[in-house]
Amino acid sequence: MKRDIALEIVKKQMPEHRYLHTLGVMETAIGLANQNGVNETQAELAAIFHDYAKYRPKAEMEQLIRMKDMPAILLEFNSELWHAPVGAYLVEHEVGITDGAILNAIRYHTSGRVGMTKLEKVIYLADYIEPGRHFPGVDEVRELAKNDFDRALIQAVQNTIVFLMKKNQPIYPDTFHTYNDLVLNLQKKD
Amino acid sequence: MKRDIALEIVKKQMPEHRYLHTLGVMETAIGLANQNGVNETQAELAAIFHDYAKYRPKAEMEQLIRMKDMPAILLEFNSELWHAPVGAYLVEHEVGITDGAILNAIRYHTSGRVGMTKLEKVIYLADYIEPGRHFPGVDEVRELAKNDFDRALIQAVQNTIVFLMKKNQPIYPDTFHTYNDLVLNLQKKD
Repeated sequence: MKRDIALEIVKKQMPEHRYLHTLGVMETAIGLANQNGVNETQAELAAIFHDYAKYRPKAEMEQLIRMKDMPAILLEFNSELWHAPVGAYLVEHEVGITDGAILNAIRYHTSGRVGMTKLEKVIYLADYIEPGRHFPGVDEVRELAKNDFDRALIQAVQNTIVFLMKKNQPIYPDTFHTYNDLVLNLQKKD
Repeated sequence: MKRDIALEIVKKQMPEHRYLHTLGVMETAIGLANQNGVNETQAELAAIFHDYAKYRPKAEMEQLIRMKDMPAILLEFNSELWHAPVGAYLVEHEVGITDGAILNAIRYHTSGRVGMTKLEKVIYLADYIEPGRHFPGVDEVRELAKNDFDRALIQAVQNTIVFLMKKNQPIYPDTFHTYNDLVLNLQKKD
């Protein structure tokens, strides 16, 4: 699917500020993909569609999670997590994208998962550091991302966990498992 | 078992500084028990024996974990975690304490677990805030513990997670399940 057509489709799914965020994620993902040997076309499409389901009504997302065999535990955690797996489903069934690697990058862009592919890491990190993001710690992750992709990702996951803990919010188990998986892999590499 | 006899037993299992820590945990645990409606005698004994296995050789602990059906996943994580479940086993089989509530307080004093009893919380927290402890954040937890036992515990678990993340260390899954369980229970109470 061509970029213009993809952008036209997602633009209808979200307000202007989220579309601008999407463009930021797209540009950032393309840069990270080229730096890290990831297919640029997959990164571009996954980035464009990563928030496809973000503005679906909660009731619709809940129904899809129940009906389409997504992990039921999602419903016990913040609904902010839901748009990622629901997005993967809708991008496949409404938009017609069938590339499993792209769909997984959409599916895991909020929680991460154990054994993330490079493409999944690119989308997770691009979503965190795109130029429209302004929150404490983001500049440090941007700097790390220039030279040390995996450490940047670990820092992003750590920041997310600390952010949630400061608000006494529960943490989705896959997020913690992602953190453990990333640091254990880093230890093996060092 | 009388306090004097119990102290005599543990004193032989550890160096002087760890024995002083044990006395600090004992005094703190008795105070927390009285504040929170926990049986003082159980708290006293669990505190006295909580680090019983701390100085056992790693090979002995590893063998007990394998032979006595303790969670094998322990072996994938920092050996600092091992003395807690190994201690529960040895306190039962070498010292002869059979009170399951006391043994569980020893077993879970480092990792925590989902559904901690009040006694388990007392030992976890006393171990964290006893007067001999000096590290960033401990005074805040001590203050919280005077009036808000559960928030103090959450803060202690959060601090532990942040401490490990700053060192890029993996986090034992039970520790973050404990965190989630505590904050979810707090939300229900609020």
